[in-house]
Amino acid sequence: MQSNEYLKHIAYDSVVFGFSGEKLKILIIRYHNTGLFALPGGFVRMNENLNDAVRRGLKERTGLDNIYLEQFYTFGDVARYKPEVMDTIMKANGHTIDEYPWFLDRFISVAYYALINYEEVVPTPDALSDSCDWYDIDKLPNLMLDHAEIVAKALQTLRENLEKKLVGMNLLPQLFTMKELQKVYEVILGEKLHRGTFQRKILNLGILQRHEKQYSGAAHKAPFLYSFGV
Amino acid sequence: MQSNEYLKHIAYDSVVFGFSGEKLKILIIRYHNTGLFALPGGFVRMNENLNDAVRRGLKERTGLDNIYLEQFYTFGDVARYKPEVMDTIMKANGHTIDEYPWFLDRFISVAYYALINYEEVVPTPDALSDSCDWYDIDKLPNLMLDHAEIVAKALQTLRENLEKKLVGMNLLPQLFTMKELQKVYEVILGEKLHRGTFQRKILNLGILQRHEKQYSGAAHKAPFLYSFGV
Repeated sequence: MQSNEYLKHIAYDSVVFGFSGEKLKILIIRYHNTGLFALPGGFVRMNENLNDAVRRGLKERTGLDNIYLEQFYTFGDVARYKPEVMDTIMKANGHTIDEYPWFLDRFISVAYYALINYEEVVPTPDALSDSCDWYDIDKLPNLMLDHAEIVAKALQTLRENLEKKLVGMNLLPQLFTMKELQKVYEVILGEKLHRGTFQRKILNLGILQRHEKQYSGAAHKAPFLYSFGV
Repeated sequence: MQSNEYLKHIAYDSVVFGFSGEKLKILIIRYHNTGLFALPGGFVRMNENLNDAVRRGLKERTGLDNIYLEQFYTFGDVARYKPEVMDTIMKANGHTIDEYPWFLDRFISVAYYALINYEEVVPTPDALSDSCDWYDIDKLPNLMLDHAEIVAKALQTLRENLEKKLVGMNLLPQLFTMKELQKVYEVILGEKLHRGTFQRKILNLGILQRHEKQYSGAAHKAPFLYSFGV
């Protein structure tokens, strides 16, 4: 990681949402031997588009291409500049800071949220971290720097986009039940929804395709499966 | 402007919207002796919050404090890196590039839109430009780099926020007529609205306060004045 390989002062952080079927979760990494928890993030190469850098990082952490990704805010306060935190991380990994003096510079961070199919992901730590795991959105560990604020703003944006852009679909497998869809809305909004009202509202949007039930011994009890698209 | 005074690689650009009473306009600067038109922008000081840098720049261009300001996107493509453009601007201003070698670096730009009261502004060029003027949103000159794309995304975001955040109020004086308010909506949305429908919808929001007409010789013809707030 040479100092002239990346744009100085610019980092990105990603809030990767997944839906377990019951809970809304995000990916958190833990840095080696530091007790520091953080959002997965990284830097932008000199000849790389910002958005491509984020996709590259997400591919490394999740194994997935073609992730649903939205940039939502760039965090640029001076208060987020805490060189001692980066110093701690580098030292805990056996590096001295003269190897990476630019790590101690002030960074602004461009924040993205990603919506992925929880089932398809194998979370993978990077070279500096010893874990990359799913955490319930309401049971996060203490996050370093301003990462808790980044998560809060990601969740706020996700809620605002839920109806406007129907982003919820990106958290589900291709075929899903009405109950699963309702659950996604509930965990994002953080509230219970009335079953009949939700179903009527969603069906009225005219964006769901209902599929034939597959025949099986218990077919008469199986719920309908839906997909997005008309 | 010393090379160690600002964060390298990071710029901001601002799309400053004003409403003339008839037209939606934005502020555009023209660089000395270059024929280059651009959005007002600038750089972030080493010890300055990103948002404060933008407010500082807007204050210099408009004379206004307390501007309604929203960050909406960070532009980070490699394709926007055109050092020859910055070179042209510096040379046309009698500078040689060895005075400001960091100007030729690649920049990402954090973009903001501002909504201001058109009447209160005295547009003021910066040291490198010979004009800073209002242009109709549908009659912009050719803008340098990706600034046309930045304007398009600003307008798209403004439209999305018009209902959600009622941002339109920031383009009006404190007291306004229903007709003026409708005109703001029309110029932002780029379409005519039905007078009765608009009025009913806006009044139903319960956010407008109606004021007593001032007595005057023609008072019986004067329209009601409104302000936001209940």
